[in-house]
Amino acid sequence: MLTAIYEPIQQDLVQVEDRLKTACEVDFPHLSQLLNYSLRSGGKRVRPALVLLSAKFYRYDLECLLPMAAAIEVLHTATLVHDDAIDDSLVRRGCPTVNKEWGEDKAILLGDYMLAKAEELVADTQNLRVIKLFARTIMTLCSGELNQAFNAFNLEQTRQQYLERIAGKTASLLTLATESGAILSQAPEESVGALKEYGYNLGVAFQIVDDILDFIGTEEEMGKPIGSDLAEGTLTLPAMLLLQRCPGGNPVRRLFQHQGDDGENIKLAIEQVRSSSIIPECYQLASDYCAQAHRNLDLLPDNASRRSLMELADFVMARKK
Amino acid sequence: MLTAIYEPIQQDLVQVEDRLKTACEVDFPHLSQLLNYSLRSGGKRVRPALVLLSAKFYRYDLECLLPMAAAIEVLHTATLVHDDAIDDSLVRRGCPTVNKEWGEDKAILLGDYMLAKAEELVADTQNLRVIKLFARTIMTLCSGELNQAFNAFNLEQTRQQYLERIAGKTASLLTLATESGAILSQAPEESVGALKEYGYNLGVAFQIVDDILDFIGTEEEMGKPIGSDLAEGTLTLPAMLLLQRCPGGNPVRRLFQHQGDDGENIKLAIEQVRSSSIIPECYQLASDYCAQAHRNLDLLPDNASRRSLMELADFVMARKK
Repeated sequence: MLTAIYEPIQQDLVQVEDRLKTACEVDFPHLSQLLNYSLRSGGKRVRPALVLLSAKFYRYDLECLLPMAAAIEVLHTATLVHDDAIDDSLVRRGCPTVNKEWGEDKAILLGDYMLAKAEELVADTQNLRVIKLFARTIMTLCSGELNQAFNAFNLEQTRQQYLERIAGKTASLLTLATESGAILSQAPEESVGALKEYGYNLGVAFQIVDDILDFIGTEEEMGKPIGSDLAEGTLTLPAMLLLQRCPGGNPVRRLFQHQGDDGENIKLAIEQVRSSSIIPECYQLASDYCAQAHRNLDLLPDNASRRSLMELADFVMARKK
Repeated sequence: MLTAIYEPIQQDLVQVEDRLKTACEVDFPHLSQLLNYSLRSGGKRVRPALVLLSAKFYRYDLECLLPMAAAIEVLHTATLVHDDAIDDSLVRRGCPTVNKEWGEDKAILLGDYMLAKAEELVADTQNLRVIKLFARTIMTLCSGELNQAFNAFNLEQTRQQYLERIAGKTASLLTLATESGAILSQAPEESVGALKEYGYNLGVAFQIVDDILDFIGTEEEMGKPIGSDLAEGTLTLPAMLLLQRCPGGNPVRRLFQHQGDDGENIKLAIEQVRSSSIIPECYQLASDYCAQAHRNLDLLPDNASRRSLMELADFVMARKK
């Protein structure tokens, strides 16, 4: 399904892969190995695709789009490497994490290296507005992650706080992708705004679905354990709704009050969420954001890329991993 | 002594402090607290001073120098926060580290935020050459740190490897300071080269002295425990020389072979280094780099800033912390 969506930019995505490969070619063999391991392990390349598709409405200039597309994938990977180190995660995309395989110290340093590599690639766009936007987005992203860390095992969180947090930690990166694609293609400000909004709404929907899959997915499909948000004390929308419905003897409440990885309570919470109407309710919210993302595209010229962006929103809703 | 050295740029350093203060003013109180704690805890501001002093030979333009000077201090602080998280250090500048006080997860995220904040500040220089140099320097720095991590507890290291590593992990940042100051003041390329070399030589001397102080300093002066390099398995020049002199029953060899924090062997190694001629030998090497740094300045116009840069090299040699 993604292959069809990526059709208008398929050739250019191959060039993005080349850039990523080049980024892994460094003199220091240990570093080269770590870069190859983390950057070339089969991500879906959603963010580079968003950069390219968003640039297809005005002046499509590969010279600056390729470094931008590569930069955002390197940045995304850096955040995954640091997230795994922070959460002591052992598996990602079905493979051992960098922290598991090489230790947490190497994971921190590799993530730092990749953050800088991403900035270097962005500088190749020679566009100061995009360079600044890139740095600010990382700041937003880290604030969102810090907010999550400071609220670990906190039961008193509102839906509004949840939405703000996922806007910061996930939607910000998708917004960066679409907004930078628009800016680099010299889109008029109105279209930059529309694509930015599209990225934001897509990103919120994306994260809500991610949080749903942590309850209803399978470890095999996800390439990582289910229920990991709960284990880390992260209160996502399904857990929040479960708390509201059963305020008393609730497995989420028990788990958070003990602040530990209690397999039994996680299992119970997953069962209760699955057997309730919580999942459809969460999907409805994600679907509302997706519908909004569709509407954001109304302003743009109708072409193959606009259809791809529409379909990408539908893909986000339907994805199983 | 530093006050006298900083005299030509004293007023401007106050403005750098203002920029750092502004960088700490964010909406999210937890983040603001962490930023204030780490950025405003009394560093010596050597790197911002180097940016400003290096810019005093041609067009001194505060508009771009202030963000650059602030950026390099934010970057430096970010690397300290991550270093402490990696080494599980408990004390820095006499205060608990961020990882000790708030946990390693917060330290990683705070460091990431500061890396991005530094890039945002650099973007304010609007100088693409400096923006790229900044990103590349972080990459060099992380490579140096990774090199150190991969060589932890490795007894088979040459002096050349040691020098390359400290060039990467320390001198790179001082080189960035002097080179960017030169570039932003529109210095001719020959002067950019001279100031860059000066920064490099100063940085190598700086780190050799740092490695000496880890053997001969006091915990009170240093604001952190002595012998910490050995405890982390980092083979610095004094330890390397001790190994060469006593290849057999050597405390460094025993410590590294057991790969653990053996207080007895660290104590022994410190005693043996102190009672040998190793320390003067290390100082001699640092002094050679300092002399080279002095010579690098020959090319520049003679003014108060050049004298300050000379004295800064002497200060690096004489410092006790």
